[in-house]
Amino acid sequence: MNTFGRIYRLTSFGESHGPAMGGIIDGMPSGVIINIDEVQRYVSRRSPVDELHSTSRREIDHVEILSGIFEGKTLGTPIGFVVRNNDAHSDDYESLRNIYRPSHADYTYQMKYGIRDYRGGGRASARETVSRMVAGAFAMQVLKQYGVRITAYVSRIGGVALGESDEIDLSQIDNSVVRCPNTLVSHRMVEAVSQAREQGDTLGGMVHCVISGVRHGLGEPVFGKLDAVLASAMMGIPAAKAFSIGKGMEFARMKGHEAIDSFEVGDYGEIRLRDNKSGGILGGISTGDDIYFDVAFKPVATMMREIQAIDSDGNPVTVEPHGRHDVCVVPRAVPIVEAMAAMVVLDALLIDKSGRL
Amino acid sequence: MNTFGRIYRLTSFGESHGPAMGGIIDGMPSGVIINIDEVQRYVSRRSPVDELHSTSRREIDHVEILSGIFEGKTLGTPIGFVVRNNDAHSDDYESLRNIYRPSHADYTYQMKYGIRDYRGGGRASARETVSRMVAGAFAMQVLKQYGVRITAYVSRIGGVALGESDEIDLSQIDNSVVRCPNTLVSHRMVEAVSQAREQGDTLGGMVHCVISGVRHGLGEPVFGKLDAVLASAMMGIPAAKAFSIGKGMEFARMKGHEAIDSFEVGDYGEIRLRDNKSGGILGGISTGDDIYFDVAFKPVATMMREIQAIDSDGNPVTVEPHGRHDVCVVPRAVPIVEAMAAMVVLDALLIDKSGRL
Amino acid sequence: MNTFGRIYRLTSFGESHGPAMGGIIDGMPSGVIINIDEVQRYVSRRSPVDELHSTSRREIDHVEILSGIFEGKTLGTPIGFVVRNNDAHSDDYESLRNIYRPSHADYTYQMKYGIRDYRGGGRASARETVSRMVAGAFAMQVLKQYGVRITAYVSRIGGVALGESDEIDLSQIDNSVVRCPNTLVSHRMVEAVSQAREQGDTLGGMVHCVISGVRHGLGEPVFGKLDAVLASAMMGIPAAKAFSIGKGMEFARMKGHEAIDSFEVGDYGEIRLRDNKSGGILGGISTGDDIYFDVAFKPVATMMREIQAIDSDGNPVTVEPHGRHDVCVVPRAVPIVEAMAAMVVLDALLIDKSGRL
Amino acid sequence: MNTFGRIYRLTSFGESHGPAMGGIIDGMPSGVIINIDEVQRYVSRRSPVDELHSTSRREIDHVEILSGIFEGKTLGTPIGFVVRNNDAHSDDYESLRNIYRPSHADYTYQMKYGIRDYRGGGRASARETVSRMVAGAFAMQVLKQYGVRITAYVSRIGGVALGESDEIDLSQIDNSVVRCPNTLVSHRMVEAVSQAREQGDTLGGMVHCVISGVRHGLGEPVFGKLDAVLASAMMGIPAAKAFSIGKGMEFARMKGHEAIDSFEVGDYGEIRLRDNKSGGILGGISTGDDIYFDVAFKPVATMMREIQAIDSDGNPVTVEPHGRHDVCVVPRAVPIVEAMAAMVVLDALLIDKSGRL
Repeated sequence: MNTFGRIYRLTSFGESHGPAMGGIIDGMPSGVIINIDEVQRYVSRRSPVDELHSTSRREIDHVEILSGIFEGKTLGTPIGFVVRNNDAHSDDYESLRNIYRPSHADYTYQMKYGIRDYRGGGRASARETVSRMVAGAFAMQVLKQYGVRITAYVSRIGGVALGESDEIDLSQIDNSVVRCPNTLVSHRMVEAVSQAREQGDTLGGMVHCVISGVRHGLGEPVFGKLDAVLASAMMGIPAAKAFSIGKGMEFARMKGHEAIDSFEVGDYGEIRLRDNKSGGILGGISTGDDIYFDVAFKPVATMMREIQAIDSDGNPVTVEPHGRHDVCVVPRAVPIVEAMAAMVVLDALLIDKSGRL
Repeated sequence: MNTFGRIYRLTSFGESHGPAMGGIIDGMPSGVIINIDEVQRYVSRRSPVDELHSTSRREIDHVEILSGIFEGKTLGTPIGFVVRNNDAHSDDYESLRNIYRPSHADYTYQMKYGIRDYRGGGRASARETVSRMVAGAFAMQVLKQYGVRITAYVSRIGGVALGESDEIDLSQIDNSVVRCPNTLVSHRMVEAVSQAREQGDTLGGMVHCVISGVRHGLGEPVFGKLDAVLASAMMGIPAAKAFSIGKGMEFARMKGHEAIDSFEVGDYGEIRLRDNKSGGILGGISTGDDIYFDVAFKPVATMMREIQAIDSDGNPVTVEPHGRHDVCVVPRAVPIVEAMAAMVVLDALLIDKSGRL
Repeated sequence: MNTFGRIYRLTSFGESHGPAMGGIIDGMPSGVIINIDEVQRYVSRRSPVDELHSTSRREIDHVEILSGIFEGKTLGTPIGFVVRNNDAHSDDYESLRNIYRPSHADYTYQMKYGIRDYRGGGRASARETVSRMVAGAFAMQVLKQYGVRITAYVSRIGGVALGESDEIDLSQIDNSVVRCPNTLVSHRMVEAVSQAREQGDTLGGMVHCVISGVRHGLGEPVFGKLDAVLASAMMGIPAAKAFSIGKGMEFARMKGHEAIDSFEVGDYGEIRLRDNKSGGILGGISTGDDIYFDVAFKPVATMMREIQAIDSDGNPVTVEPHGRHDVCVVPRAVPIVEAMAAMVVLDALLIDKSGRL
Repeated sequence: MNTFGRIYRLTSFGESHGPAMGGIIDGMPSGVIINIDEVQRYVSRRSPVDELHSTSRREIDHVEILSGIFEGKTLGTPIGFVVRNNDAHSDDYESLRNIYRPSHADYTYQMKYGIRDYRGGGRASARETVSRMVAGAFAMQVLKQYGVRITAYVSRIGGVALGESDEIDLSQIDNSVVRCPNTLVSHRMVEAVSQAREQGDTLGGMVHCVISGVRHGLGEPVFGKLDAVLASAMMGIPAAKAFSIGKGMEFARMKGHEAIDSFEVGDYGEIRLRDNKSGGILGGISTGDDIYFDVAFKPVATMMREIQAIDSDGNPVTVEPHGRHDVCVVPRAVPIVEAMAAMVVLDALLIDKSGRL
């Protein structure tokens, strides 16, 4: 159950304070030219964006590729990789051995497995997503050859949100420490983060993602609908709590005549959606229009204030703030959303090929 | 890709105007006493609730079990079943042969497969969910033995929604033609449906689902999280457009101190969530508390008014209203949501067993 | 676990004395012209070849297709089918309710499931292979378009075997009641069968299968080698006990210089194997040469003589001969071997496509 | 397709002259005490048994465990591991870049992928089996707790075979350089190997494997039969060419009365097979008796003599002998057969659990 995908498959391993994280990418087509430096750069996007609002623990995620690449090209064989866990201060966590922190997976892992690596979240740590970044980075390089572009950004942090009328400049995303593509809204988000930090609080938020350049016909009805697979991919990201495709949640309030998604003929004679309320997917299959969706994230539960936890005997305990922590992880979720989306689209593309003679 | 589940698996087949729908349930444990009449009753819940707001085509879904049951008990072998398509007026659909209706899957199926059964939506018809109802009905009978109860209801139709302060009486769900558990809100929803019908319009809505009695420990991190699997299950239902677990979408607006989900010790000494904002799942694994989630549905695109469609050459065409159609399918989605949830929970339970010596 | 294949997948159901056998074929490419009569003819090849040496129970296996075909072509959607069990004399089997027959699956099914359909073998009956015949027949029609031909025949019945120097005329296979492609050897096999019948005995045998016209490159190393998948497919046929690819078992006695499989250049400049000792597969991947293999079958344990069985309390019981039974089922296994081979090759072909951009 | 197993799953990676081999074991139950030293010792059994008849390249396979073990116990999370490729003399292989050696996978990999790592066989090298050894070693430790013992040995090398009347002492297997459990036959095998070495030749052989202590009820009909899964596992081992369960190939020559496998009642009142001709499996499900089978291996094609190969343009080329090579790899296959068997049995055991409430 540590495998994602059907043809393009990532199997991942690693606890946050064990020797290493890593994974195996299976199903990568052969003969693809890979730029390893670009993979490394892509993976680094998951690291804390800005010293100001993030953990003091500096995560340098060096990706070591162990197989599957030969003379700069993919072999069609599995790509094994590891990312070492360098500076794990495991002793810091000794006090958490018998404690279940609220909103964390401590309790549920203990109940399921009867044992857990309590250091820094163990397998449940968001550090596990580094493997997804690697598999996403490889997928992205293949998809580029197909003209597919995947771009995610932060559309809300707590009470501050991008409005429908706010201008968006996708080239500015990585220039914003909160990865918001509108300078003004970005500033307001940074302020909200600062304020929350002062209060020893944290903030939830929303990520919006657009996939363009996907041809029509991807996605497998009935149980492999492209939006259902995207939903599963996104809801598997730590702290994700809701997924909405196209106009999504808004559809529930609509009347049919407002929701209807008319076709038109484009400049090249192609059939396309006029308003694309559906988010580029009909009946679980891509239309050729932009695919877009939203993912909601809860605020992280580890804060710079005392937290009321419970120990394994059911006694209340107070967990003191410790080290420094992200006030808002949503900006760091942006490349993870992109990486998961890249895996889903490449996988859908390869499955679609298997259905054709 | 017409298979759902990992251990408890449904593989389904059928086009809405072909000879039959049906499926195979694999992974059903042996020796379970099955009440076939109850399966049939459960499946019938998918049929139109009320002549007033639904299709004139009367769907009598008789389930014929072909294997896997012997002397009233499951054999542990696959359960094959068929549901005949009785009164298909295929000729009515001849005019749709070369037409792509907006918001339907006509266009995407044609693009993906180069061929489609254009009669009544073919494989993309919601009629396909009858197979899910059967597999869900069987799962439900197993889950009852484990004390699991799954209850869904309509929480919104268009502009009318259940409020946080509205009282809820789950025993009234099936007494309401819109499957809303509050009499007053139910009446307002019925009115909204009547109004939309008069306008030749349709309405979207929301279904809320609660799963109680699930023990802690179900769900498989990292890519098989219980909420991610539920998301995939729900987003695979026709017309579903968003999924939200626990406080879901609301989390994006919250601060950490509002979102934190404290533990407490219950009456039997068990550890449980005080407010259960998480929806009964932490780190993808069940806590033992109620699991609850919301699914948003778009309004159906087939309305009692002229619709602007496009033909396969890209020419605009007008589709006349034809027969009678559901103004709001959300009440009919209620048992489908339950059925999918039942499959997910039983599957999670069986997988969890495979992880224990 | 009632599913075979990865892309082209058969899921089957049915107990021999339940209402029906059947299955769902998923992964069939769309737009393939299908000759349903030919499917029916192919499936009928599994029926008893000759009144003389087979069961008196006449199995008329009418295949009813329920979905996936539209106007004579495949839709790309799953193909559901059923084959009714017509003349099941279930009462005849009442005496076997608590008895475990030797060499049958009665005992193991009872131990595994705690319940079994004891009538005629239930799920363990060879009647289950009718579903494989249907899926194989469809696969064969696709493969023909690729120039693939699959031909199996009986190479041994008990003590009578085809020798290396015996001439073989593949066109004669179905003219021989024992499906042996050499008239003389066929006659000797028929004699052996007659003699065994007189003695109330049965006979084991061997099936040889040749797949020609498969292009190079099919098969997935490391765990999806084409020969490993074939082995699994063949060993899953009832009564199969050994599998050997190419020179197979003989290789164990060989020296390297005898076993080495030299390449040569063919008439069209293609690289090919001179002697093809490997059986058309190297490193689990097809070479483009003929793939050939052997499958050994044990004699059926149901004979026209008293059999010593055991009841569920461990007491010895004698089972009287009953009805008429096949003396040698190996000729009936011939089309099943072909059908399984067809599924394996089509599946390998579709997977190979998914690995290419 | 680099994954083996359904619940207990190994995904492997690595080319023989890349940075490392390795893999991920998923589905390992939690809380199992693991002796890592024993894992290492087990893996080392794959290394050349004896300087005399093996490669000069000394393979020291140090297994580094990267996750899934915590304080000496399994966490239930995936176990990542790597085995570095230490002394790869890649330059030695430059001359093989455009050459297809006979009986090797050079040609088929090139045809399938359009690219290959030609150094030492790349992904097709038997070195890949080191990952299977690791996963098998872990499985073995779990199975020991269930009383399962798996023992394989060499039963034939070229013309020298263990006879039915030869005594067998399983404790002597690893004392024999050819892993044959009869001292006299072992000596004759060693002689045959010496002779073949002098002639610059190699030898094929046979491995026999016995699995004892498996309870009844393992194996999943119809397509997951325990013998079919074992066949697939064994045929996936490099150079394996045939698989035979129980009396296997011999059954083809038998009459029913010779082949019938009678039940008897054992000392503890248990039902068991008197002669166990079936090899401990009936209808694909274990009977509780010993499971035994044979695997035939072809002689290695790399010999200490000139080999006629072909280049990518179809020209004949001569490959000179190079370094030192195993004359007979069959003794080294013994622990690989055991490792694969261990994975199959543990997987079957865990799947069986998933089928019970």
